[in-house]
Amino acid sequence: MFFEKFFEEFEIGESRESQGRTITETDIVIHAGQTGDFYPHHMDAEWCKTQPQGQRIAHGTLTFAIAAGLGAGAINSKAMTYGYEKLRFPKPVFIGDTVRVTFTITDKQPHPRKPGFGLVTEHTVMTNQRGETVMVCDHVHFVECKTGPDA
Amino acid sequence: MFFEKFFEEFEIGESRESQGRTITETDIVIHAGQTGDFYPHHMDAEWCKTQPQGQRIAHGTLTFAIAAGLGAGAINSKAMTYGYEKLRFPKPVFIGDTVRVTFTITDKQPHPRKPGFGLVTEHTVMTNQRGETVMVCDHVHFVECKTGPDA
Amino acid sequence: MFFEKFFEEFEIGESRESQGRTITETDIVIHAGQTGDFYPHHMDAEWCKTQPQGQRIAHGTLTFAIAAGLGAGAINSKAMTYGYEKLRFPKPVFIGDTVRVTFTITDKQPHPRKPGFGLVTEHTVMTNQRGETVMVCDHVHFVECKTGPDA
Amino acid sequence: MFFEKFFEEFEIGESRESQGRTITETDIVIHAGQTGDFYPHHMDAEWCKTQPQGQRIAHGTLTFAIAAGLGAGAINSKAMTYGYEKLRFPKPVFIGDTVRVTFTITDKQPHPRKPGFGLVTEHTVMTNQRGETVMVCDHVHFVECKTGPDA
Amino acid sequence: MFFEKFFEEFEIGESRESQGRTITETDIVIHAGQTGDFYPHHMDAEWCKTQPQGQRIAHGTLTFAIAAGLGAGAINSKAMTYGYEKLRFPKPVFIGDTVRVTFTITDKQPHPRKPGFGLVTEHTVMTNQRGETVMVCDHVHFVECKTGPDA
Amino acid sequence: MFFEKFFEEFEIGESRESQGRTITETDIVIHAGQTGDFYPHHMDAEWCKTQPQGQRIAHGTLTFAIAAGLGAGAINSKAMTYGYEKLRFPKPVFIGDTVRVTFTITDKQPHPRKPGFGLVTEHTVMTNQRGETVMVCDHVHFVECKTGPDA
Repeated sequence: MFFEKFFEEFEIGESRESQGRTITETDIVIHAGQTGDFYPHHMDAEWCKTQPQGQRIAHGTLTFAIAAGLGAGAINSKAMTYGYEKLRFPKPVFIGDTVRVTFTITDKQPHPRKPGFGLVTEHTVMTNQRGETVMVCDHVHFVECKTGPDA
Repeated sequence: MFFEKFFEEFEIGESRESQGRTITETDIVIHAGQTGDFYPHHMDAEWCKTQPQGQRIAHGTLTFAIAAGLGAGAINSKAMTYGYEKLRFPKPVFIGDTVRVTFTITDKQPHPRKPGFGLVTEHTVMTNQRGETVMVCDHVHFVECKTGPDA
Repeated sequence: MFFEKFFEEFEIGESRESQGRTITETDIVIHAGQTGDFYPHHMDAEWCKTQPQGQRIAHGTLTFAIAAGLGAGAINSKAMTYGYEKLRFPKPVFIGDTVRVTFTITDKQPHPRKPGFGLVTEHTVMTNQRGETVMVCDHVHFVECKTGPDA
Repeated sequence: MFFEKFFEEFEIGESRESQGRTITETDIVIHAGQTGDFYPHHMDAEWCKTQPQGQRIAHGTLTFAIAAGLGAGAINSKAMTYGYEKLRFPKPVFIGDTVRVTFTITDKQPHPRKPGFGLVTEHTVMTNQRGETVMVCDHVHFVECKTGPDA
Repeated sequence: MFFEKFFEEFEIGESRESQGRTITETDIVIHAGQTGDFYPHHMDAEWCKTQPQGQRIAHGTLTFAIAAGLGAGAINSKAMTYGYEKLRFPKPVFIGDTVRVTFTITDKQPHPRKPGFGLVTEHTVMTNQRGETVMVCDHVHFVECKTGPDA
Repeated sequence: MFFEKFFEEFEIGESRESQGRTITETDIVIHAGQTGDFYPHHMDAEWCKTQPQGQRIAHGTLTFAIAAGLGAGAINSKAMTYGYEKLRFPKPVFIGDTVRVTFTITDKQPHPRKPGFGLVTEHTVMTNQRGETVMVCDHVHFVECKTGPDA
């Protein structure tokens, strides 16, 4: 469940891929219920027929949360989430689409003000079964250096 | 439900505040179920007792999704989400905390490559009942200019 | 699962009582999510502290739906719901309250325009563990006569 | 979120319309789970094929609760729910139907025993995408008079 | 709600049948969320297309839990669950299948070490709308004898 | 996500332990809703106070399903579930208990009628934070031999 991976051990270009997951009408209904976002884009099939996309689409926050969840495997006890950057939704996710996520280490920098820690950027790309990119973001991790916070 | 507000009509400093919402154990359990993120930080009260925060905390993606939902009121038909920047979680959200969100327009720029459109930044700050900031991000909107896309 | 009970077989004063059910925070959160009613009366514990009732209360529609569900046992294949009258919520239902429902036949009338059918009124009273009435309504059933619709 | 509208300010004939919402299989399954009503009308597609309506239908309590939720916008701090009358379900709601609700003020009366308060009736009609009425009720509000309870 | 049926009153061959229930995509999504089992067999429609069964299937634990729930009617206050044996899933349950359960008393034995109690085996068989058996198990009940535990 | 482990590679005594999970009131309410089992043992806190255990307890099927889910990590593509034996619930699981599961290989046998396959028994024990055993069962896997089904 837990493992240890220090800042020094991350390498630019390292990559992992999640399993797939089909986004269902149920996911959208539960997400509307969890967030209170009942916008017609997600909840009104008749209105959607009058719009360019023609059908209901997943909430961006649902897409993002599922991407994060698909990456939640073993836990690096030397890292925690620092934040997210450049979250974008290039294409809509429709009911019945099957998505998967690729996580790639694209940057690592010593923390500018906290000696002994670094920031590791994991570029996160969700694609659907047609190979289209439906979500991208940079997940920045705050990671302990092997030398330790007191080094 | 729908209203029209063009790029030119946004003013830096405009602000609105959401209603409050108490984050419950139910929210966390449902979010774990929706995302598949069953990390012990959210799901194992015994393990949490051994950690600095001492108790279960909400998922960052839950906090973010609820913040977005709390802002989902009337719909500006001239705007859509462009993306999010600088998503951070300065303090944890605990079960029983009551959060609310302030949305402030902090920037507006013509779109660099798409004439007739602009980017409007809505700085989003979630606070708890103790006045602590628990989430911040910049929600960037893609907004039509009054002059229209063809102007 | 199914049984047959005709209009003629109902007797004024007949009564049945449901089992009990504890209303939980989960029920309220799920009901908010199902209906989209996130009013602070149900969702904002801090705001509720400033109000006379002092705490979150169940939605009236939740109370009503659970009362109906507690009465959903064997199905009379000769009856269907005609409607509801005089739905009232004399006292709030709080998280942790345990409710039960008494159903009493209080009226029966031949249907004014449909020979062979009658209307049977089932007075429905939900009480909590303190013996307070928290919901009442008249559930009116449309019931076939033994003589049949063609009699 | 809150506004003030006194008894005197309601006018017979005032009307507002909700947004639309597609009723999903998920809504029915969650409602069965919330209420404990697993009647075959809602849960057994094979049995429904043998019945006149031919398919699963939404619970009446679900239809009613969603209608109430669709009306839950800004909150009039001078009003609270007094009760509901004449709740009827003229046509079934099927999975995939999209409903919307019209709310019209149809009556206002001084409260017979409580000076300074009145009863305002909001006639509530839910229709589907075929224009059929699927639910009606009278929502009665208990509203403060401008003159105040002590007047 | 409660009734009393002693060990002596069970007869080999006694049988009862549940009502039917259609297993929905919603059931599977909620069960994945409740258990944390997001295996592609249940959640990835694209991957399932590459497998012999060709489509998503219900979790075995979902099938089993629903079978138990379909049998949860009136409660015998003289019995409690001792355990389950020989739980098998001969055929998969697909989204949209309608299942029902037959419960048959197939064995009864005095408890080997606890005088005054017996073990009653209820053979449980779930079938789908094509008459295929999709789950079987032996539910063993621990039942008080009429003579009482002190006899 | 997938790995390959053949019958020959399992060793009696091999063991793995799950992470922990706190069982919440939410889990019980959702499970009642999923199964339709609203027995007062799980849903009526007042009635439970009059019983020996004094409080609401988790459904056995919930405990079992969560145990299975806690074991759902990487997938052995050479194995599938054959069935479960000796499922027992020695102690109740209460709201707020934190459980974890130990899985130990306790038996392996060639399949009696299917050459090239074997049956591997994984003894499954769930314990709570007080070290009490709350569920045990034998999960039997149907596993391909390295020699293959045609050997």
